[in-house]
Amino acid sequence: MSNIVTLTTDFGLQDHYVSVMKAVMLEVSPDLRFIDISHQIPPQDIMAGAWVLKNASMEFPPGTVHLVVVDPGVGTERHAVAVKIQDQLFVGPDNGIFSLIGDEYEYEAYRLSNSKFWKKKPSNTFHGRDIFAPVAAHLANGVSLSDLGEPVEELVTYRWAVPISDRDGIQGWVIHIDRYGNLVTNITSEMIRESVNSSRFRIYAGNTILDKIVPTFNSVEDGEPAAYIGSSDTLEIAINKGNAQEMLGVQKGAQISIIIQK
Amino acid sequence: MSNIVTLTTDFGLQDHYVSVMKAVMLEVSPDLRFIDISHQIPPQDIMAGAWVLKNASMEFPPGTVHLVVVDPGVGTERHAVAVKIQDQLFVGPDNGIFSLIGDEYEYEAYRLSNSKFWKKKPSNTFHGRDIFAPVAAHLANGVSLSDLGEPVEELVTYRWAVPISDRDGIQGWVIHIDRYGNLVTNITSEMIRESVNSSRFRIYAGNTILDKIVPTFNSVEDGEPAAYIGSSDTLEIAINKGNAQEMLGVQKGAQISIIIQK
Amino acid sequence: MSNIVTLTTDFGLQDHYVSVMKAVMLEVSPDLRFIDISHQIPPQDIMAGAWVLKNASMEFPPGTVHLVVVDPGVGTERHAVAVKIQDQLFVGPDNGIFSLIGDEYEYEAYRLSNSKFWKKKPSNTFHGRDIFAPVAAHLANGVSLSDLGEPVEELVTYRWAVPISDRDGIQGWVIHIDRYGNLVTNITSEMIRESVNSSRFRIYAGNTILDKIVPTFNSVEDGEPAAYIGSSDTLEIAINKGNAQEMLGVQKGAQISIIIQK
Repeated sequence: MSNIVTLTTDFGLQDHYVSVMKAVMLEVSPDLRFIDISHQIPPQDIMAGAWVLKNASMEFPPGTVHLVVVDPGVGTERHAVAVKIQDQLFVGPDNGIFSLIGDEYEYEAYRLSNSKFWKKKPSNTFHGRDIFAPVAAHLANGVSLSDLGEPVEELVTYRWAVPISDRDGIQGWVIHIDRYGNLVTNITSEMIRESVNSSRFRIYAGNTILDKIVPTFNSVEDGEPAAYIGSSDTLEIAINKGNAQEMLGVQKGAQISIIIQK
Repeated sequence: MSNIVTLTTDFGLQDHYVSVMKAVMLEVSPDLRFIDISHQIPPQDIMAGAWVLKNASMEFPPGTVHLVVVDPGVGTERHAVAVKIQDQLFVGPDNGIFSLIGDEYEYEAYRLSNSKFWKKKPSNTFHGRDIFAPVAAHLANGVSLSDLGEPVEELVTYRWAVPISDRDGIQGWVIHIDRYGNLVTNITSEMIRESVNSSRFRIYAGNTILDKIVPTFNSVEDGEPAAYIGSSDTLEIAINKGNAQEMLGVQKGAQISIIIQK
Repeated sequence: MSNIVTLTTDFGLQDHYVSVMKAVMLEVSPDLRFIDISHQIPPQDIMAGAWVLKNASMEFPPGTVHLVVVDPGVGTERHAVAVKIQDQLFVGPDNGIFSLIGDEYEYEAYRLSNSKFWKKKPSNTFHGRDIFAPVAAHLANGVSLSDLGEPVEELVTYRWAVPISDRDGIQGWVIHIDRYGNLVTNITSEMIRESVNSSRFRIYAGNTILDKIVPTFNSVEDGEPAAYIGSSDTLEIAINKGNAQEMLGVQKGAQISIIIQK
């Protein structure tokens, strides 16, 4: 085990919620080390949480436990789960938050039904503190997944907008906009290699049309838009030294098309 | 000792202030581990700091040191103190920040008058770095409270608006609004059990009237208001999948009444 | 070595960028401890990053590695460097971010040209993850600077507005505005001692004129402006219990003058 627990939540940093989860985990296992992935997931935005989780989690040392609490359905029928994907462990609500990782890798999942690993008398509204955090600490301590509860065949999967590729080109979507206003799409470099190959093409993003993919946003003049393969290995659109979201007027969820010129 | 130091400040995360305090503590004691409770306490808002501190601190392992710097009176007559409450240690200004914990538990307090545990030549404006942080590190190192200075009989206590209960019902206040816009009141579940018991009642929050307490905000339809006992064991009012502060127009400090129907 | 790595970036806390750098470093060196200096440097604001870095870094234990990624020129000609200043180590882009520390201390710098210490196949847009982070971890592990690449004679230096002192007084600038709205200038206490000495003087900040330097902002009435020597040992102007930026209408970069009265 790595004794590392990461945290990904929509709790923000103003309230006591994040630190209380850490306190509860330290009670279970005093030597844990914490890495905050993000607590600024927009409130209850499962898609944003899934994206951040996919990009951060798989880089951690083997045995790292990832505690994930973006949980609009707390206190309802949604299940709590622990999931093993390759050499990483995850704990959180089964509400689609694991969709993007679960699409890409094989997984092994268990329902958190064994209350022995919970806090006593869990509240109805803060399962992060009362169920997920103590279970994460026990996992980091070496408790095995199968002790936590019964196996789950299939995790809830969000039907994310997946990019579509045909002989005319590729239709994808802005899946994330980062702090700089860069538009991150779900069109992978592999799709572009296979579909577009050496053809001439146009990229449509809002009212802006681009006709090439450059190495990086710095490859164009200041204030100009650039399409390039970003650090998540998908197509991104940015303005060199500017904010593409504001300057192109393109929002999360917007369609991005690559049309092959014949 | 747990070698854990938590930090609660109104410094925000943009400036160097928080990290300099950690650097100073590491100089005193290189193996300390830090847990940030919050640095987003609204500037100089002692009430907000006291609320966050109360909800987070008492869950930590025995011997944890809590460094608290919400300090509008830095450089004035206000005293600096170290406080022991149950098995937790606190360091900060004696300005009311410990009111909510001090109301609930016995405490033992000492004034920080022994400059041997301070940074040399403390500034007038940054006692966090120059006095509180080094003292916190020495405490975590095992220095005893009585070495820090003379005992303090009574800590400064803010006369917080306390809820009032009579045969007509309960008058309380919104003591905190969290990131989701949930209204957290100071009306405890115990007061409700004792005062309201099995009577019919109405809850007044701004222009909204509720007539029952449900298990959680998810117990009502999307967009509907719900009153429930929150994770701090007090009455909360929320909108399921919405923002109660915005939708009900209720601010921090607003009165919340529970009126018994006769 | 201290096995401590600090992080200073303009990545914000919403995205996965910061945590991925930590994951990469933990792969290289599993026992590292991280201290976040700030991830809220305004996007691509090298001057703000340099200011925060100068005020935080030199207080850390000997051997601390400071990873700095404010990098508008990523993927262009700008070089990546490692720098030793006194007993502290720094890794980041050579774009002026080390100007303020480099002005004050001797340094020894090396270009990061040895790709053996990088991540395999670095991206064009995220050198923080692919080059700076692994190099920082190797440095913390004991790799010596001269193994990283060839020596650099002189680092890029921003020609910051430096304060000017003559027999009429001192002209300086607001170099930073903190969370409280306090105006931090680059006029040092030493300049004031030497230039103004015991003469009568006036301080001009926007339309506000002050005629004395007080011990701290709390030395004046609530709502009144105060000039005092702040915790960075430079002149600051604040409003007691108020926001000087808003109330005096003074922005970052504004000129502040101290004029000697004859």
